Amino acid sequence: MNSIKDRADLIAAAAKKMGKEVFSNGFVKDSTPRFELQKQAGKVVTLEEAIKKSGLKDGMTISFHHHFRGGDKVINMVVAKLAEMGFKNLHLASSSLIDVHEPLIEHIKNGVITKISTSGLRGALATEISHGLMDEPVVFRSHGSRGYAIKSGELHIDVAFLGASSCDPLGNAAGYSTSENAKSICGSLGYALPDAKYADHTIILTDDLVDYPNQHNAISEADVDYVVVVDSVGDSSKISSGAIRDTKNPRDILLAKQAAKVVMNSGYFENGFSLQTGSGGASLAVTKYLRQGMIDKGIKASFALGGITSHMVKLHQEGLIDRLIDVQSFDKVAAESLMNDPKHKGVSANEYAAMLEPGSATHYLDVVILSALEVDVNFNVNVLVGSDGIIRGAIGGHPDTAADSALSIIVCPLLRGRIPCVVDEVTTLITPGSTVDVVVTEFGVAVNPRRPELKARLEAAGIKIVEITELRDRAKSIIGNAAPLPFGDKVVGVVMARDGSVMDVIKNIAD
Amino acid sequence: MNSIKDRADLIAAAAKKMGKEVFSNGFVKDSTPRFELQKQAGKVVTLEEAIKKSGLKDGMTISFHHHFRGGDKVINMVVAKLAEMGFKNLHLASSSLIDVHEPLIEHIKNGVITKISTSGLRGALATEISHGLMDEPVVFRSHGSRGYAIKSGELHIDVAFLGASSCDPLGNAAGYSTSENAKSICGSLGYALPDAKYADHTIILTDDLVDYPNQHNAISEADVDYVVVVDSVGDSSKISSGAIRDTKNPRDILLAKQAAKVVMNSGYFENGFSLQTGSGGASLAVTKYLRQGMIDKGIKASFALGGITSHMVKLHQEGLIDRLIDVQSFDKVAAESLMNDPKHKGVSANEYAAMLEPGSATHYLDVVILSALEVDVNFNVNVLVGSDGIIRGAIGGHPDTAADSALSIIVCPLLRGRIPCVVDEVTTLITPGSTVDVVVTEFGVAVNPRRPELKARLEAAGIKIVEITELRDRAKSIIGNAAPLPFGDKVVGVVMARDGSVMDVIKNIAD
Repeated sequence: MNSIKDRADLIAAAAKKMGKEVFSNGFVKDSTPRFELQKQAGKVVTLEEAIKKSGLKDGMTISFHHHFRGGDKVINMVVAKLAEMGFKNLHLASSSLIDVHEPLIEHIKNGVITKISTSGLRGALATEISHGLMDEPVVFRSHGSRGYAIKSGELHIDVAFLGASSCDPLGNAAGYSTSENAKSICGSLGYALPDAKYADHTIILTDDLVDYPNQHNAISEADVDYVVVVDSVGDSSKISSGAIRDTKNPRDILLAKQAAKVVMNSGYFENGFSLQTGSGGASLAVTKYLRQGMIDKGIKASFALGGITSHMVKLHQEGLIDRLIDVQSFDKVAAESLMNDPKHKGVSANEYAAMLEPGSATHYLDVVILSALEVDVNFNVNVLVGSDGIIRGAIGGHPDTAADSALSIIVCPLLRGRIPCVVDEVTTLITPGSTVDVVVTEFGVAVNPRRPELKARLEAAGIKIVEITELRDRAKSIIGNAAPLPFGDKVVGVVMARDGSVMDVIKNIAD
Repeated sequence: MNSIKDRADLIAAAAKKMGKEVFSNGFVKDSTPRFELQKQAGKVVTLEEAIKKSGLKDGMTISFHHHFRGGDKVINMVVAKLAEMGFKNLHLASSSLIDVHEPLIEHIKNGVITKISTSGLRGALATEISHGLMDEPVVFRSHGSRGYAIKSGELHIDVAFLGASSCDPLGNAAGYSTSENAKSICGSLGYALPDAKYADHTIILTDDLVDYPNQHNAISEADVDYVVVVDSVGDSSKISSGAIRDTKNPRDILLAKQAAKVVMNSGYFENGFSLQTGSGGASLAVTKYLRQGMIDKGIKASFALGGITSHMVKLHQEGLIDRLIDVQSFDKVAAESLMNDPKHKGVSANEYAAMLEPGSATHYLDVVILSALEVDVNFNVNVLVGSDGIIRGAIGGHPDTAADSALSIIVCPLLRGRIPCVVDEVTTLITPGSTVDVVVTEFGVAVNPRRPELKARLEAAGIKIVEITELRDRAKSIIGNAAPLPFGDKVVGVVMARDGSVMDVIKNIAD
């Protein structure tokens, strides 16, 4: 037998040939119990320590997700801490911003936040920005575009602050917790995944520090630098607030029923079809009315995509929808289903809807039902700026799903109070008319002239088809011509198209 | 209201400021049903087409996983096709190679395969290589080292051929299938994940093409170029073959019981401890004997790691092990548990055991029980080359887990037939003695002098402690001095250390 010593030359020769060093036998066994090592890994720190260690500097970009929607506590908490620590001139890039983020107004006024990128803006913050609060225009992107901009480096994130309902000491984080101490639940962390993956530094804030390893984590420890334990990351009872409340409005129900009828007669209502419903009462409610049609015709959907709702979970549990692909859980029922059901799968914004990712699920979507603030005679849609010129919505996945689906249906009343929803030209262009197939109103259904075969099918089914110009004329006949909006000369928002180009701008509105 | 036309200048100005193009409204709606589009994505092709499209050329590196162990059908199938297509001079990098891969001998003789990287070699292929079949030495790496070498680019894979028990047309692949047509199951695809992620081209071979989206997939479509449907990727009944058969050997059972006693008195047997058992009858059997101790003392483990067995699944289901972290399912029960149990989590080779990844699970492992072909008086371990000089084993995660765990226990009989297992110096160095804490034999337990506190605890518990030299002497007194092995001068294998340096070489053995 050759001794190690005898082999020394051979080993050296093999190492040289491979361009390698010879093993030095330098491993030293550490006898510390391993559960101690996890704590010693040093990831679990206070928020202030995490911020300091991240190397955050004035002028850098910080990011957040909005999965807790109206219940989110992370953005206000972190920005308040950054203000306290004296940071200035930060670029806040959130997947969206809503009413609850009103405190940002003060931080903008104080120069802590000087630039915003988001999918949407609502509430007092939106109103102030519409009136010219910020010098830099807010950059609006769809969820798919945001994911891709982060991946491509166009939206470079220096430090991501991501709320999670559970996280272990190494950073494995999820939008739910299976521990006894679970305090919150938001379900999918789809919009946070690009941030975690591509940000220079990722900080998880959690209200439940669980034992390693947190199972079925959405965010991997490999992407996490620091873990901060806080009292609460969000109020889960407010996930289904704002645009995703269940509707009891009779007109919404009428629109939903009509949209379901369009789906069932579109030619896409076949075994294995796939479905998404956007936010907004009428579009969310369509699922309910499709259910009976599916049962009657023995049709089962292959998957439902996007914002997943309790209605979709119900159909899934009844066997009518095989799989749920969830970038954002629209209510607590959906969030709990994501936690418990292996056929309910969380996906990232990029896996969901990025134009330039061939595998993104929207490419394989048959039917999407979406809402609108305004539709114009060219089928262009606005979901961001109210007819009063004030920002009051979110792009969300609207242009992504409209473009990629086989059939995009907009449900939209002709009027909201004295405000016409079918107009000559949208106040702000969000979803190009070339990607919109059908507009469902309570006064008839308009089909994009690009889709004559679809129009023929719907007509054959006895659905009342009207020209979109007729709808516009009807609105005008009731309301008259709208007075021009008092826009100023300041650009307060820039809307990015899916391909990363500039699609439209939003100007300030006079007080 | 500003018309789109009026806004043109503003949009152009915003675009210019951002260095962007203006949106061209060039989206064209495609009315093809989406389930058609999936097929049109063009990923599903024949094996020959996939090989041609991958751009594979003579001299390149191809890779495979061995999750089906003795039942694997992919390696032989693909290499036969490559031979038929006339490829030469390929580097075959598999996570391991076993008896079933005997047909590679012909492909080596014919010049199709001229280089091999693997964790292990067994059977006729190993014997031939030990006798000098190949000009290039086989490069042996541990599972953790292989994962890291792939990640770092040191082991660059041109085309990965990865068997999967289910895959959708876009490439979402898993080691199990929930469809009615499921033909095979191997559970975790942990060793295939680095290949899928870092190979230039990834081809999935599957025996169950399922509907998009394959839920809870291990390999993401984003990492997959082509999907090939084959009759069978593996015989699942042979997963638990070879080194991971359940033992009925009374000596193995004695060793397992003694090892369990060592664990229970080591100081690491506390609530929340973590556990791994390597392949080999005695080490696998330890779990069974720990069970009663856990029940008696009310101790629960936080996680079991590594090759997961039915014994661990049982303890998990009884609530004695909270979570299972599975890089390789050692039997069908484990594979099915991975498919069905959210607390049974698949991980990649890198998440499992890479030295240079701070989050790899081995860093948080308390106790590992491992087998050995030989242990020497410096606690060095050989698990690769038999005492006859013929390669007959696999490195596996042996050096990874020994080094990272708080307590590494080697279970090893003093003799196997007329072959001594405790020797002066191991035939081949695989796991450095500095990382080995305890050697359990049927003639007593030896503790590494580096761990006096451990020795004291075991002695206090009444466990018979012996010097490792006493064990060596006892073996010698029975067998006498072993004759030197008839090694030749040709280097047939190079053993890489965890840090990427060369640790040892294996020379050819005379016929």
